[in-house]
Amino acid sequence: MITMTVPTERRVCFIDVTGRVAEVLQRCALTDGAVLVTVPHTTAAVTINENADPTVRSDLEMALERLVPDDLPFAHLEGNSDAHAKAMLVGGSVMVPVEAGRLVLGTWQGIFFAEFDGPRQRRLHVQPLSAGDPRTD
Amino acid sequence: MITMTVPTERRVCFIDVTGRVAEVLQRCALTDGAVLVTVPHTTAAVTINENADPTVRSDLEMALERLVPDDLPFAHLEGNSDAHAKAMLVGGSVMVPVEAGRLVLGTWQGIFFAEFDGPRQRRLHVQPLSAGDPRTD
Amino acid sequence: MITMTVPTERRVCFIDVTGRVAEVLQRCALTDGAVLVTVPHTTAAVTINENADPTVRSDLEMALERLVPDDLPFAHLEGNSDAHAKAMLVGGSVMVPVEAGRLVLGTWQGIFFAEFDGPRQRRLHVQPLSAGDPRTD
Repeated sequence: MITMTVPTERRVCFIDVTGRVAEVLQRCALTDGAVLVTVPHTTAAVTINENADPTVRSDLEMALERLVPDDLPFAHLEGNSDAHAKAMLVGGSVMVPVEAGRLVLGTWQGIFFAEFDGPRQRRLHVQPLSAGDPRTD
Repeated sequence: MITMTVPTERRVCFIDVTGRVAEVLQRCALTDGAVLVTVPHTTAAVTINENADPTVRSDLEMALERLVPDDLPFAHLEGNSDAHAKAMLVGGSVMVPVEAGRLVLGTWQGIFFAEFDGPRQRRLHVQPLSAGDPRTD
Repeated sequence: MITMTVPTERRVCFIDVTGRVAEVLQRCALTDGAVLVTVPHTTAAVTINENADPTVRSDLEMALERLVPDDLPFAHLEGNSDAHAKAMLVGGSVMVPVEAGRLVLGTWQGIFFAEFDGPRQRRLHVQPLSAGDPRTD
Protein backbone atom coordinates (compact mmCIF):
# COMPACT_ATOMS: atom_id res chain seq x y z
CA MET A 1 0.00 0.00 0.00
CA ILE A 2 1.23 3.47 -0.86
CA THR A 3 -0.07 6.64 0.78
CA MET A 4 0.01 10.02 -0.90
CA THR A 5 -0.82 13.43 0.51
CA VAL A 6 -3.48 15.59 -1.14
CA PRO A 7 -3.62 19.28 -0.23
CA THR A 8 -7.06 20.82 -0.74
CA GLU A 9 -7.64 24.52 -1.26
CA ARG A 10 -11.35 25.12 -0.64
CA ARG A 11 -14.07 23.80 1.67
CA VAL A 12 -15.57 21.77 -1.17
CA CYS A 13 -13.60 20.74 -4.23
CA PHE A 14 -12.82 17.83 -6.54
CA ILE A 15 -9.12 17.18 -7.25
CA ASP A 16 -7.99 15.00 -10.15
CA VAL A 17 -5.61 12.32 -8.81
CA THR A 18 -5.72 9.96 -11.80
CA GLY A 19 -2.11 10.63 -12.82
CA ARG A 20 -0.81 10.07 -9.31
CA VAL A 21 -2.71 6.78 -8.93
CA ALA A 22 -1.33 5.65 -12.30
CA GLU A 23 2.20 6.49 -11.10
CA VAL A 24 1.73 4.32 -8.00
CA LEU A 25 0.63 1.46 -10.23
CA GLN A 26 3.77 1.82 -12.36
CA ARG A 27 5.88 1.33 -9.23
CA CYS A 28 4.16 -2.03 -8.55
CA ALA A 29 4.62 -5.33 -10.33
CA LEU A 30 0.85 -5.69 -10.72
CA THR A 31 -0.21 -6.63 -14.24
CA ASP A 32 -3.68 -8.09 -13.71
CA GLY A 33 -6.10 -7.24 -10.91
CA ALA A 34 -7.35 -3.98 -9.50
CA VAL A 35 -6.32 -0.94 -7.55
CA LEU A 36 -8.17 0.02 -4.38
CA VAL A 37 -8.13 3.76 -3.61
CA THR A 38 -9.35 4.76 -0.14
CA VAL A 39 -9.72 7.93 1.88
CA PRO A 40 -8.84 7.62 5.60
CA HIS A 41 -11.10 10.58 6.44
CA THR A 42 -14.80 10.95 7.32
CA THR A 43 -15.49 14.31 5.66
CA ALA A 44 -13.90 13.55 2.29
CA ALA A 45 -14.49 10.94 -0.40
CA VAL A 46 -13.14 9.59 -3.67
CA THR A 47 -15.12 9.20 -6.88
CA ILE A 48 -14.77 8.63 -10.62
CA ASN A 49 -16.39 11.12 -12.97
CA GLU A 50 -15.79 13.22 -16.08
CA ASN A 51 -12.27 14.55 -16.50
CA ALA A 52 -12.92 16.82 -19.49
CA ASP A 53 -15.26 19.77 -18.88
CA PRO A 54 -14.55 21.29 -15.42
CA THR A 55 -18.14 22.55 -15.21
CA VAL A 56 -19.17 18.95 -14.51
CA ARG A 57 -17.28 19.14 -11.22
CA SER A 58 -18.87 22.47 -10.27
CA ASP A 59 -22.28 21.04 -11.19
CA LEU A 60 -21.60 18.03 -8.95
CA GLU A 61 -20.65 20.38 -6.09
CA MET A 62 -23.87 22.35 -6.60
CA ALA A 63 -26.02 19.21 -6.71
CA LEU A 64 -24.43 17.91 -3.48
CA GLU A 65 -24.88 21.26 -1.75
CA ARG A 66 -28.55 21.19 -2.69
CA LEU A 67 -28.89 17.60 -1.41
CA VAL A 68 -27.25 18.29 1.95
CA PRO A 69 -27.26 22.01 2.79
CA ASP A 70 -24.96 22.96 5.66
CA ASP A 71 -27.81 24.69 7.49
CA LEU A 72 -29.88 21.60 8.27
CA PRO A 73 -30.70 21.24 11.99
CA PHE A 74 -27.66 19.07 12.73
CA ALA A 75 -26.76 18.08 16.33
CA HIS A 76 -22.99 17.49 15.84
CA LEU A 77 -21.25 20.51 17.38
CA GLU A 78 -18.30 20.64 14.98
CA GLY A 79 -20.63 22.09 12.35
CA ASN A 80 -19.49 19.77 9.56
CA SER A 81 -22.24 17.14 9.52
CA ASP A 82 -23.10 18.12 5.96
CA ALA A 83 -19.56 17.03 5.02
CA HIS A 84 -20.02 13.68 6.80
CA ALA A 85 -23.28 13.13 4.89
CA LYS A 86 -21.75 14.08 1.54
CA ALA A 87 -18.82 11.71 2.22
CA MET A 88 -21.32 8.90 2.92
CA LEU A 89 -23.25 9.56 -0.30
CA VAL A 90 -20.17 9.79 -2.54
CA GLY A 91 -18.25 6.97 -0.82
CA GLY A 92 -14.79 6.54 0.63
CA SER A 93 -13.24 4.21 -1.92
CA VAL A 94 -13.08 3.33 -5.59
CA MET A 95 -11.89 0.15 -7.28
CA VAL A 96 -10.29 0.40 -10.73
CA PRO A 97 -9.54 -2.74 -12.77
CA VAL A 98 -5.92 -3.25 -13.91
CA GLU A 99 -5.07 -5.03 -17.16
CA ALA A 100 -1.63 -5.31 -18.78
CA GLY A 101 -0.31 -3.15 -15.94
CA ARG A 102 -2.64 -0.25 -16.70
CA LEU A 103 -5.69 1.30 -15.06
CA VAL A 104 -8.83 0.43 -17.02
CA LEU A 105 -10.74 3.71 -17.17
CA GLY A 106 -13.19 4.96 -19.78
CA THR A 107 -12.22 7.77 -22.13
CA TRP A 108 -13.85 10.46 -20.03
CA GLN A 109 -13.17 8.98 -16.59
CA GLY A 110 -10.87 10.52 -14.01
CA ILE A 111 -10.35 9.65 -10.33
CA PHE A 112 -11.17 12.59 -8.07
CA PHE A 113 -10.43 13.25 -4.42
CA ALA A 114 -13.61 14.88 -3.10
CA GLU A 115 -13.06 17.38 -0.30
CA PHE A 116 -16.12 18.43 1.72
CA ASP A 117 -14.56 20.12 4.76
CA GLY A 118 -11.32 21.75 3.59
CA PRO A 119 -8.98 23.29 3.07
CA ARG A 120 -6.73 20.67 4.68
CA GLN A 121 -3.79 18.37 4.09
CA ARG A 122 -5.42 15.04 3.25
CA ARG A 123 -4.21 11.50 2.56
CA LEU A 124 -5.13 8.87 -0.01
CA HIS A 125 -4.22 5.17 0.14
CA VAL A 126 -3.55 3.12 -3.00
CA GLN A 127 -3.51 -0.66 -2.59
CA PRO A 128 -2.87 -3.03 -5.54
CA LEU A 129 -4.87 -6.28 -5.50
CA SER A 130 -3.96 -9.26 -7.62
CA ALA A 131 -6.29 -11.23 -9.88
CA GLY A 132 -4.29 -14.19 -8.56
CA ASP A 133 -3.63 -17.45 -10.34
CA PRO A 134 -7.08 -17.89 -11.80
CA ARG A 135 -7.11 -16.20 -15.19
CA THR A 136 -9.89 -15.59 -17.63
CA ASP A 137 -8.62 -17.17 -20.84
CA MET B 1 -11.02 -9.00 -17.32
CA ILE B 2 -14.01 -9.52 -19.56
CA THR B 3 -16.03 -6.72 -21.13
CA MET B 4 -19.67 -7.07 -22.11
CA THR B 5 -21.90 -4.67 -24.01
CA VAL B 6 -25.15 -3.46 -22.49
CA PRO B 7 -27.71 -1.80 -24.77
CA THR B 8 -30.05 0.57 -22.93
CA GLU B 9 -33.48 1.55 -24.19
CA ARG B 10 -34.50 4.64 -22.24
CA ARG B 11 -32.84 7.73 -20.81
CA VAL B 12 -33.07 6.29 -17.29
CA CYS B 13 -33.39 2.56 -16.62
CA PHE B 14 -32.07 -0.30 -14.51
CA ILE B 15 -31.05 -3.45 -16.40
CA ASP B 16 -30.54 -6.78 -14.62
CA VAL B 17 -27.08 -8.13 -15.53
CA THR B 18 -26.79 -10.75 -12.75
CA GLY B 19 -27.01 -13.72 -15.11
CA ARG B 20 -24.38 -12.30 -17.44
CA VAL B 21 -21.96 -11.60 -14.59
CA ALA B 22 -22.49 -15.16 -13.31
CA GLU B 23 -21.72 -16.50 -16.80
CA VAL B 24 -18.42 -14.60 -16.85
CA LEU B 25 -17.54 -16.11 -13.50
CA GLN B 26 -18.21 -19.60 -14.83
CA ARG B 27 -15.65 -19.00 -17.59
CA CYS B 28 -12.97 -18.22 -14.96
CA ALA B 29 -11.13 -20.60 -12.67
CA LEU B 30 -11.91 -18.41 -9.67
CA THR B 31 -13.27 -20.37 -6.72
CA ASP B 32 -12.61 -18.02 -3.78
CA GLY B 33 -12.39 -14.24 -3.93
CA ALA B 34 -14.60 -11.59 -5.45
CA VAL B 35 -15.79 -10.16 -8.71
CA LEU B 36 -15.32 -6.47 -9.48
CA VAL B 37 -17.95 -5.03 -11.85
CA THR B 38 -17.21 -1.54 -13.22
CA VAL B 39 -18.80 0.90 -15.61
CA PRO B 40 -16.36 2.80 -17.90
CA HIS B 41 -18.86 5.65 -18.28
CA THR B 42 -19.57 8.86 -16.33
CA THR B 43 -23.34 9.04 -16.79
CA ALA B 44 -24.15 5.44 -15.85
CA ALA B 45 -23.59 3.32 -12.75
CA VAL B 46 -23.91 -0.19 -11.38
CA THR B 47 -25.76 -1.16 -8.22
CA ILE B 48 -27.19 -4.11 -6.33
CA ASN B 49 -30.86 -4.02 -5.35
CA GLU B 50 -34.08 -6.02 -5.36
CA ASN B 51 -34.55 -8.39 -8.30
CA ALA B 52 -38.15 -9.42 -7.57
CA ASP B 53 -40.79 -6.67 -7.78
CA PRO B 54 -40.00 -4.37 -10.75
CA THR B 55 -41.77 -1.47 -9.02
CA VAL B 56 -38.71 -1.20 -6.76
CA ARG B 57 -36.66 -0.13 -9.79
CA SER B 58 -39.25 2.42 -10.91
CA ASP B 59 -39.38 3.72 -7.33
CA LEU B 60 -35.57 4.06 -7.33
CA GLU B 61 -35.73 5.97 -10.61
CA MET B 62 -38.38 8.29 -9.14
CA ALA B 63 -36.38 8.88 -5.95
CA LEU B 64 -33.24 9.70 -7.95
CA GLU B 65 -35.14 12.04 -10.27
CA ARG B 66 -36.47 13.86 -7.20
CA LEU B 67 -32.94 14.08 -5.71
CA VAL B 68 -31.33 15.46 -8.86
CA PRO B 69 -33.91 17.00 -11.23
CA ASP B 70 -32.60 17.66 -14.72
CA ASP B 71 -33.71 21.30 -14.56
CA LEU B 72 -31.26 22.43 -11.86
CA PRO B 73 -29.21 25.48 -12.93
CA PHE B 74 -26.32 23.38 -14.28
CA ALA B 75 -23.39 24.98 -16.15
CA HIS B 76 -22.30 21.96 -18.22
CA LEU B 77 -23.52 22.63 -21.76
CA GLU B 78 -24.19 19.00 -22.71
CA GLY B 79 -27.32 19.12 -20.57
CA ASN B 80 -26.65 15.84 -18.78
CA SER B 81 -25.19 17.01 -15.48
CA ASP B 82 -28.08 15.37 -13.64
CA ALA B 83 -26.85 12.05 -15.07
CA HIS B 84 -23.29 12.74 -13.87
CA ALA B 85 -24.63 13.49 -10.37
CA LYS B 86 -26.83 10.37 -10.29
CA ALA B 87 -23.85 8.26 -11.41
CA MET B 88 -21.78 9.71 -8.55
CA LEU B 89 -24.49 8.97 -5.98
CA VAL B 90 -25.13 5.39 -7.13
CA GLY B 91 -21.48 4.58 -7.84
CA GLY B 92 -19.55 3.12 -10.75
CA SER B 93 -18.63 -0.29 -9.35
CA VAL B 94 -19.83 -3.16 -7.19
CA MET B 95 -17.86 -5.94 -5.53
CA VAL B 96 -19.51 -9.34 -5.08
CA PRO B 97 -17.86 -12.06 -2.97
CA VAL B 98 -17.19 -15.40 -4.66
CA GLU B 99 -17.25 -18.67 -2.73
CA ALA B 100 -17.08 -22.19 -4.20
CA GLY B 101 -17.02 -20.59 -7.63
CA ARG B 102 -20.35 -18.80 -7.15
CA LEU B 103 -21.46 -15.20 -6.64
CA VAL B 104 -22.52 -14.65 -3.04
CA LEU B 105 -25.73 -12.63 -3.34
CA GLY B 106 -28.71 -12.46 -1.02
CA THR B 107 -32.02 -14.03 -2.02
CA TRP B 108 -33.48 -10.77 -3.31
CA GLN B 109 -30.28 -9.24 -4.69
CA GLY B 110 -29.61 -8.63 -8.37
CA ILE B 111 -26.84 -6.66 -10.09
CA PHE B 112 -28.23 -3.79 -12.16
CA PHE B 113 -26.64 -1.62 -14.82
CA ALA B 114 -28.02 1.86 -14.11
CA GLU B 115 -28.44 4.05 -17.18
CA PHE B 116 -28.94 7.78 -16.58
CA ASP B 117 -28.32 9.25 -20.05
CA GLY B 118 -29.50 6.68 -22.58
CA PRO B 119 -30.48 5.13 -24.78
CA ARG B 120 -26.97 4.05 -25.74
CA GLN B 121 -24.72 1.07 -26.29
CA ARG B 122 -22.82 0.73 -22.99
CA ARG B 123 -20.03 -1.46 -21.66
CA LEU B 124 -19.47 -3.28 -18.37
CA HIS B 125 -16.16 -4.73 -17.14
CA VAL B 126 -16.02 -7.86 -14.99
CA GLN B 127 -12.72 -8.57 -13.24
CA PRO B 128 -12.21 -11.64 -10.99
CA LEU B 129 -10.00 -11.09 -7.92
CA SER B 130 -8.49 -13.92 -5.94
CA ALA B 131 -8.67 -14.40 -2.20
CA GLY B 132 -5.07 -15.60 -2.66
CA ASP B 133 -3.26 -18.13 -0.52
CA PRO B 134 -4.54 -16.94 2.82
CA ARG B 135 -7.73 -18.79 3.61
CA THR B 136 -10.18 -18.40 6.42
CA ASP B 137 -10.30 -21.84 8.02
CA MET C 1 -15.55 -15.76 3.58
CA ILE C 2 -17.01 -15.43 7.04
CA THR C 3 -20.62 -14.43 7.73
CA MET C 4 -21.70 -12.75 10.94
CA THR C 5 -25.19 -11.94 12.17
CA VAL C 6 -26.14 -8.38 13.06
CA PRO C 7 -29.30 -7.81 15.08
CA THR C 8 -30.80 -4.34 14.57
CA GLU C 9 -33.09 -2.66 17.07
CA ARG C 10 -34.81 0.17 15.22
CA ARG C 11 -36.18 0.83 11.72
CA VAL C 12 -33.17 3.05 10.90
CA CYS C 13 -29.86 2.79 12.76
CA PHE C 14 -26.10 2.63 12.30
CA ILE C 15 -24.31 -0.19 14.18
CA ASP C 16 -20.53 -0.14 14.68
CA VAL C 17 -19.09 -3.46 13.44
CA THR C 18 -15.43 -2.41 13.23
CA GLY C 19 -14.30 -4.64 16.08
CA ARG C 20 -16.09 -7.67 14.67
CA VAL C 21 -14.56 -7.16 11.20
CA ALA C 22 -11.12 -6.82 12.81
CA GLU C 23 -11.69 -10.10 14.68
CA VAL C 24 -12.49 -11.88 11.42
CA LEU C 25 -9.27 -10.55 9.94
CA GLN C 26 -7.29 -11.90 12.90
CA ARG C 27 -8.64 -15.40 12.16
CA CYS C 28 -7.25 -15.18 8.59
CA ALA C 29 -3.65 -15.45 7.43
CA LEU C 30 -4.03 -12.29 5.35
CA THR C 31 -1.18 -9.82 5.87
CA ASP C 32 -1.38 -7.64 2.76
CA GLY C 33 -4.49 -6.93 0.71
CA ALA C 34 -7.97 -5.81 1.59
CA VAL C 35 -11.15 -6.90 3.28
CA LEU C 36 -14.44 -6.80 1.40
CA VAL C 37 -17.49 -6.30 3.64
CA THR C 38 -20.88 -6.85 1.97
CA VAL C 39 -24.52 -6.81 2.96
CA PRO C 40 -26.70 -9.56 1.40
CA HIS C 41 -29.82 -7.41 1.83
CA THR C 42 -31.55 -4.77 -0.30
CA THR C 43 -32.85 -2.48 2.45
CA ALA C 44 -29.61 -2.21 4.43
CA ALA C 45 -26.10 -0.97 3.63
CA VAL C 46 -22.59 -0.71 5.03
CA THR C 47 -20.56 2.49 5.28
CA ILE C 48 -17.49 3.99 6.90
CA ASN C 49 -17.93 7.19 8.91
CA GLU C 50 -17.05 8.86 12.20
CA ASN C 51 -16.81 6.55 15.22
CA ALA C 52 -16.42 9.22 17.90
CA ASP C 53 -19.39 11.57 18.39
CA PRO C 54 -22.66 9.57 18.11
CA THR C 55 -24.51 12.70 16.98
CA VAL C 56 -22.80 12.25 13.60
CA ARG C 57 -24.78 9.04 13.11
CA SER C 58 -28.08 10.67 14.12
CA ASP C 59 -27.28 13.56 11.77
CA LEU C 60 -26.64 11.07 8.94
CA GLU C 61 -29.99 9.40 9.68
CA MET C 62 -31.73 12.78 9.57
CA ALA C 63 -30.03 13.80 6.31
CA LEU C 64 -31.03 10.49 4.68
CA GLU C 65 -34.61 10.79 5.92
CA ARG C 66 -34.77 14.24 4.37
CA LEU C 67 -33.31 12.95 1.08
CA VAL C 68 -35.74 10.02 0.78
CA PRO C 69 -38.86 10.53 2.93
CA ASP C 70 -40.96 7.42 3.40
CA ASP C 71 -44.10 9.22 2.18
CA LEU C 72 -42.99 9.71 -1.43
CA PRO C 73 -45.54 8.34 -3.95
CA PHE C 74 -43.88 4.92 -4.20
CA ALA C 75 -45.48 2.06 -6.17
CA HIS C 76 -43.86 -0.90 -4.32
CA LEU C 77 -46.58 -2.34 -2.09
CA GLU C 78 -44.30 -3.47 0.75
CA GLY C 79 -43.99 0.17 1.79
CA ASN C 80 -40.21 0.12 2.18
CA SER C 81 -39.05 1.70 -1.08
CA ASP C 82 -37.44 4.51 0.90
CA ALA C 83 -35.20 1.85 2.48
CA HIS C 84 -34.29 0.45 -0.95
CA ALA C 85 -33.36 3.95 -2.12
CA LYS C 86 -31.29 4.71 1.00
CA ALA C 87 -29.47 1.38 0.58
CA MET C 88 -28.64 2.33 -3.02
CA LEU C 89 -27.31 5.74 -2.01
CA VAL C 90 -25.17 4.47 0.88
CA GLY C 91 -24.02 1.31 -0.89
CA GLY C 92 -23.93 -2.38 -0.06
CA SER C 93 -20.19 -2.91 0.40
CA VAL C 94 -16.99 -1.35 1.68
CA MET C 95 -13.39 -2.23 0.95
CA VAL C 96 -10.78 -1.68 3.66
CA PRO C 97 -7.05 -2.02 2.89
CA VAL C 98 -5.07 -4.49 5.02
CA GLU C 99 -1.39 -3.93 5.82
CA ALA C 100 0.74 -5.97 8.25
CA GLY C 101 -2.39 -7.97 9.05
CA ARG C 102 -4.37 -4.93 10.20
CA LEU C 103 -7.29 -2.93 8.84
CA VAL C 104 -6.07 0.43 7.54
CA LEU C 105 -8.64 2.90 8.86
CA GLY C 106 -8.25 6.58 9.69
CA THR C 107 -8.28 7.73 13.32
CA TRP C 108 -11.97 8.64 13.27
CA GLN C 109 -13.18 5.92 10.92
CA GLY C 110 -15.47 3.08 11.94
CA ILE C 111 -17.34 0.52 9.83
CA PHE C 112 -21.11 0.75 10.30
CA PHE C 113 -23.91 -1.60 9.36
CA ALA C 114 -26.68 0.71 8.15
CA GLU C 115 -30.20 -0.56 8.80
CA PHE C 116 -33.03 1.13 6.91
CA ASP C 117 -35.93 -1.31 7.41
CA GLY C 118 -35.46 -2.91 10.82
CA PRO C 119 -35.60 -4.15 13.38
CA ARG C 120 -34.41 -7.48 11.99
CA GLN C 121 -31.75 -10.15 12.24
CA ARG C 122 -29.28 -9.23 9.48
CA ARG C 123 -26.11 -10.75 8.02
CA LEU C 124 -22.76 -9.33 6.98
CA HIS C 125 -20.13 -11.09 4.82
CA VAL C 126 -16.41 -10.50 5.31
CA GLN C 127 -14.12 -11.70 2.52
CA PRO C 128 -10.31 -11.29 2.67
CA LEU C 129 -8.61 -10.51 -0.66
CA SER C 130 -4.89 -10.89 -1.19
CA ALA C 131 -2.54 -8.33 -2.66
CA GLY C 132 -0.96 -11.37 -4.30
CA ASP C 133 2.66 -11.77 -5.30
CA PRO C 134 3.14 -8.29 -6.71
CA ARG C 135 4.35 -6.04 -3.91
CA THR C 136 4.94 -2.34 -3.75
CA ASP C 137 8.54 -2.03 -2.58
